[in-house]
Amino acid sequence: MAGTVTVPGSSVPSTPLLKDELDIVIPTIRNLDFLEMWRPFFQPYHLIIVQDGDPSKVIKVPEGFDYELYNRNDINRILGPKASCISFKDSACRCFGYMVSKKKYVFTIDDDCFVAKDPSGKDINALEQHIKNLLSPSTPFFFNTLYDPYREGADFVRGYPFSLREGAPTAVSHGLWLNIPDYDAPTQMVKPRERNTRYVDAVLTIPKGTLFPMCGMNLAFDRQLIGPAMYFGLMGDGQPIGRYDDMWAGWCVKVICDHLSLGVKTGLPYLWHSKASNPFVNLKKEYKGIFWQEDIIPFFQNATLPKECDTVQKCYISLSEQVKEKLGKIDPYFVKLADAMVTWIEAWDELNPSDAVVASGNGKAAAK
Amino acid sequence: MAGTVTVPGSSVPSTPLLKDELDIVIPTIRNLDFLEMWRPFFQPYHLIIVQDGDPSKVIKVPEGFDYELYNRNDINRILGPKASCISFKDSACRCFGYMVSKKKYVFTIDDDCFVAKDPSGKDINALEQHIKNLLSPSTPFFFNTLYDPYREGADFVRGYPFSLREGAPTAVSHGLWLNIPDYDAPTQMVKPRERNTRYVDAVLTIPKGTLFPMCGMNLAFDRQLIGPAMYFGLMGDGQPIGRYDDMWAGWCVKVICDHLSLGVKTGLPYLWHSKASNPFVNLKKEYKGIFWQEDIIPFFQNATLPKECDTVQKCYISLSEQVKEKLGKIDPYFVKLADAMVTWIEAWDELNPSDAVVASGNGKAAAK
Repeated sequence: MAGTVTVPGSSVPSTPLLKDELDIVIPTIRNLDFLEMWRPFFQPYHLIIVQDGDPSKVIKVPEGFDYELYNRNDINRILGPKASCISFKDSACRCFGYMVSKKKYVFTIDDDCFVAKDPSGKDINALEQHIKNLLSPSTPFFFNTLYDPYREGADFVRGYPFSLREGAPTAVSHGLWLNIPDYDAPTQMVKPRERNTRYVDAVLTIPKGTLFPMCGMNLAFDRQLIGPAMYFGLMGDGQPIGRYDDMWAGWCVKVICDHLSLGVKTGLPYLWHSKASNPFVNLKKEYKGIFWQEDIIPFFQNATLPKECDTVQKCYISLSEQVKEKLGKIDPYFVKLADAMVTWIEAWDELNPSDAVVASGNGKAAAK
Repeated sequence: MAGTVTVPGSSVPSTPLLKDELDIVIPTIRNLDFLEMWRPFFQPYHLIIVQDGDPSKVIKVPEGFDYELYNRNDINRILGPKASCISFKDSACRCFGYMVSKKKYVFTIDDDCFVAKDPSGKDINALEQHIKNLLSPSTPFFFNTLYDPYREGADFVRGYPFSLREGAPTAVSHGLWLNIPDYDAPTQMVKPRERNTRYVDAVLTIPKGTLFPMCGMNLAFDRQLIGPAMYFGLMGDGQPIGRYDDMWAGWCVKVICDHLSLGVKTGLPYLWHSKASNPFVNLKKEYKGIFWQEDIIPFFQNATLPKECDTVQKCYISLSEQVKEKLGKIDPYFVKLADAMVTWIEAWDELNPSDAVVASGNGKAAAK
């Protein structure tokens, strides 16, 4: 077992899981001092830093980390006119990092998130838990009352159909937050002192047909399985909303995962979310979204994808057409967003030509 | 606050929640010594004991409990020919207790289940947690990543539609088990030493459209909302299967709850399941069910109820017709079961005439 020996006195294995197959994507506008606390867990991995805001500002990254950093000038240079699909002055810009990654897996984290402790007081290796979640199957077709049946000490309970026990490949691992919960502006305003102190020791699959509010603060996914659907939309500068970037991605991702029989897990790992954002600023950003989501969610709940859509790209293009047709009636913003969804896929395929071959599945490309 | 004062040194309030609105239903074949451990929590409530097997056997109930006890002779006397729908020599007989209860709520528990301890070492008042679950709404239409949003210290997360935050009435509270998990015979055989030691501090709603394996060991429900669907089927003596009684009820209940926009919760409370049943005996009972469930579950996943079905009774009769038509092809057992489902509803309405009035909604009855 050379290479996987655990360093005495440390819970970090000497060869971390998926070291060469996972990128950590961090959107930021400031120096990345928060990485110091994550050093034991993140240092072995490659970081993709997406700098938002003023590109002339210099972002300091603590020494010893292996990273590439992209600012707005880089995004514009790399994508040309297609850069229009990447949000500016909003953490939605992180999805550019998903696009330029060359790895199978991505973990993305906000720079105000720190290492949390489990109830025994031990530091939680969030990344390791995400990797466990992604590498074990999901159970989207039937609910298991003892939660993740693939965890040690757990299994499928009586009455769980045996034909479903192989599970489905896991595309997404959605982690949670201790301390500051991910509340919307109205809830922040009503409950300014609420803190999440409940450590729920569970990972579970969100059942097929059920939507969920996906938060981008602590999120990992399999790029190969679902990457092209992880578009964080048009938010921030010049757009009528913010703080719906991850929600948008989550709705699209879940509909596509359901169609392609892929799994989405939520629960562990927790991280420590240090600081509540300003609820007044948030309300301004969320305001229109609060109304729109009342129509958007039924739209996604009823969205179906044609059988021919057998790749994430095809699914996403089909969704963009439905967005334009059905949500375009609510506000012209959704027409623009639908167009940006198409641009995103074009840009993705341009930067990931081998994906595109698989995706398009056309004879010529496949014959290469 | 007279009457709700807590006895010093005790965590049991002097007036327990729903004291006069809840019955505890216990199926048994032996003396109920297990009640000693539950005394602080159960003694204030009324018990309905359903004695299975030889009716001449005398079941001892510890002193101080308020109870009524029914044996097979009583069931035959009360239901006459309709007693055929109540299973014999199987804990499925417990559903007779649901039928004769006159209370709004029922909690049912197996007699090999004891008080569990939470991670802090405190005895868990399972009944109190079930009541909390039943008295607070469910969230079947959208998933909340921080679990039950109505619990103290929790709420709906960002992105949860505001129109859905009122929730749906909770019809069922499904509790879990520490120590011996509720495994089927094959899993028991493969993992004879597995014990459930993971205390997951969560209650969550099983989303609309998702089926789950409902276990009858630790279960509470609102009789008024869902009682007539809590039929535990034909099991045991003279029947080709056993150990699918609660599963059958769970599938029917979930389909009907989804149709009527009622909620089903699972998670807390835990109890301590003391003893694994014999896996060889279990395999004999489960054998046919293991095959049948592969067809039964898709059947229930695709079952739809007509809009006219606006009461549990009407829903249940419609389901019985679909069972006869579609599952009857698998085995004649399902034709018999479908008939028993109808008999069950007839017996329920006979013993619960005021329910029947509400249920039938006919002018004459309503005019009373």
